[in-house]
Amino acid sequence: MKNITFDEINVGDKATYTRTITQKDIEDFAAVSGDNNPVHLSEEFAKNSQFGGVIAHGMLAVSFISKILGTEYPGPGTIFMGMNNLKFLAPVRPGDTVEAMVEVTKKHDSKPVVTFECSAVNQDGVKLLEAEAVVLASTSRIEFTPKV
Amino acid sequence: MKNITFDEINVGDKATYTRTITQKDIEDFAAVSGDNNPVHLSEEFAKNSQFGGVIAHGMLAVSFISKILGTEYPGPGTIFMGMNNLKFLAPVRPGDTVEAMVEVTKKHDSKPVVTFECSAVNQDGVKLLEAEAVVLASTSRIEFTPKV
Repeated sequence: MKNITFDEINVGDKATYTRTITQKDIEDFAAVSGDNNPVHLSEEFAKNSQFGGVIAHGMLAVSFISKILGTEYPGPGTIFMGMNNLKFLAPVRPGDTVEAMVEVTKKHDSKPVVTFECSAVNQDGVKLLEAEAVVLASTSRIEFTPKV
Repeated sequence: MKNITFDEINVGDKATYTRTITQKDIEDFAAVSGDNNPVHLSEEFAKNSQFGGVIAHGMLAVSFISKILGTEYPGPGTIFMGMNNLKFLAPVRPGDTVEAMVEVTKKHDSKPVVTFECSAVNQDGVKLLEAEAVVLASTSRIEFTPKV
């Protein structure tokens, strides 16, 4: 795993992460977050909800944005500063394939701060969420090889 | 589990969720999000980082906000619409006890939309994050008893 340094970052650069959501992922996210809302865990409850069936936690899809920023682009050494205007636009259901995407929209001048436009879509091209993310990128090369 | 209906919600109402973060929680969050940044998983890597040791994923603490909104206040039936001005202010470390908090700041007029000021602090009172959350609250009573 190797980072993209601040100097190597260009406005317009994009990175993606694609993952198919399983009911097990939703159960695992419920356990780690404490969010055991039955709309995520009970088909019996969820089928009578406005969603007509079980949906994933919105924050699960948002975490894929964080995954890209922290491991792919800019990668290790990046400090996640915050997000603006996060909007959940459509539900994520078990079996959906989520493609999360980040695109560099601004490199700041005084500090190695980078702004990204972020989004996620499902296999049908439906936009699931959008947000702006702000990170502090590393100015030096950071490499890491995990032990097997 | 029972919701707070839109009519029952008052500006100034607060709800909290407190959880002590374990290294296992961080590993579980890494698995479900795909975010295997070594700053979360490798003490060897993290001790030489700007954080001086392993830290939790920021989104793990944010998910506690979602947990409150979806299961406690307003609870089941709530639709999470989005977040504004999410700022990560300090790192969360394994062993830290995180208290996440939401406070109603606005009830909207035309729709049952509610705005919350959200934050999380650790056991030393250090503010870890802040954000504004916007939800669509249910106007009707929703109750659910999970099967044992």
